[in-house]
Amino acid sequence: MSKKKNAVVLLSGGADSSTTLAVARRDGFDIYALTFAYGQRHAAELEAARRVAARFRVAEHKVVQIDLRAFGGSALTSDILVPKDREIAEMSTGIPVTYVPARNTIFLSYALAMAEVIDASDIYIGVNSLDYSGYPDCRPEYIAAFEAMANLATRAGVEGSHLTIHTPLICLTKAEIVALGTSLDVDFGETSTCYDPDDRGLACGRCDACQLRLKGFAEAGLIDPAPYQGAERVL
Amino acid sequence: MSKKKNAVVLLSGGADSSTTLAVARRDGFDIYALTFAYGQRHAAELEAARRVAARFRVAEHKVVQIDLRAFGGSALTSDILVPKDREIAEMSTGIPVTYVPARNTIFLSYALAMAEVIDASDIYIGVNSLDYSGYPDCRPEYIAAFEAMANLATRAGVEGSHLTIHTPLICLTKAEIVALGTSLDVDFGETSTCYDPDDRGLACGRCDACQLRLKGFAEAGLIDPAPYQGAERVL
Repeated sequence: MSKKKNAVVLLSGGADSSTTLAVARRDGFDIYALTFAYGQRHAAELEAARRVAARFRVAEHKVVQIDLRAFGGSALTSDILVPKDREIAEMSTGIPVTYVPARNTIFLSYALAMAEVIDASDIYIGVNSLDYSGYPDCRPEYIAAFEAMANLATRAGVEGSHLTIHTPLICLTKAEIVALGTSLDVDFGETSTCYDPDDRGLACGRCDACQLRLKGFAEAGLIDPAPYQGAERVL
Repeated sequence: MSKKKNAVVLLSGGADSSTTLAVARRDGFDIYALTFAYGQRHAAELEAARRVAARFRVAEHKVVQIDLRAFGGSALTSDILVPKDREIAEMSTGIPVTYVPARNTIFLSYALAMAEVIDASDIYIGVNSLDYSGYPDCRPEYIAAFEAMANLATRAGVEGSHLTIHTPLICLTKAEIVALGTSLDVDFGETSTCYDPDDRGLACGRCDACQLRLKGFAEAGLIDPAPYQGAERVL
């Protein structure tokens, strides 16, 4: 662990980033949580992020408005329909329409700026390469390349300290993430994962993200406490 | 040169980025210019960027609002005073207070998103490592690391095409940049370089950026046509 006590944690309000924040807290850091309002359809995520940040008593929770709609190109930032009821096997082939171009690169770049300003050498991001639904910027080789770049980009790099990108979930299954989060006091009922929640913020249960989440709970032998449209779905 | 005909060019409206845009045009690309309004003090830069984009008839000029003030940490995004009348030698030691944390990383990340959406494999940025005033994210090794990361970050990386970050000014002196831009029909009177222009958009002539620019014109044997506060300064 770094001798510095501050860490930046990217917090979307979903199950993965909330578990990641809990891991950073367990690792002994004071948490500076960073959430993006990026023209995504689901403001429910922002509310979830606020609940999780409050539960874990972060030192600061910054919500940054960014406009990824300016570029379009994704079902999460434009009018492309979010796919529903895909088979799990289908999700792992190709890059889905919910992929947002360069999203993690933009998010990590802001995290890097925040880390420099608060003098942190540690950034946490909840990417996951097993159940990752085909996003190129969730792969371990991508994270390693970002870390190498980051260490040349800032004062820290020039002055010789080392910045680390932590990805504690990268090799975990969704079931293992659910078990880990539960053991670290994440209340998954406060988190929001769905790509297409309704006006009340209730998850659809049918998009890729919901299906992977529900599969994780089922494999962990747990019931997802989050509210779903209609009856709770168990695969 | 890439077989694709679109290129993204980061355009601040200063002398360097305007010359870079002219180089991309000379290289035969259709230009997608990308400018950031990032809480910087000088809206004059945005006006300059619009003039330059119009002169070179870009295919598209996107101005993206981003909030780097959220993090502070720089004289360009907070209330720290911009230093004036420093000796040129002094500028090349250490990282100045005008350094914006992770700025080029954030800018290039957005360029990467835009490149993916418009199907471009080429990004141009006007960084300069000789007269660079000590910014870590203007060094060649930083750019190489960003390019390596970018090629793992996106669909292009997964699908095997190669993205190139072009830095045509990286080894040029300011005098060489002025000469190159002039040869490619840049009207430097339309550009804005100053860190601290007045309400009329007139350059101060005394900040690091103005001094390096004026030194470049002097060494190139040219008069800077841009408007300055008071008399035109010639070093």
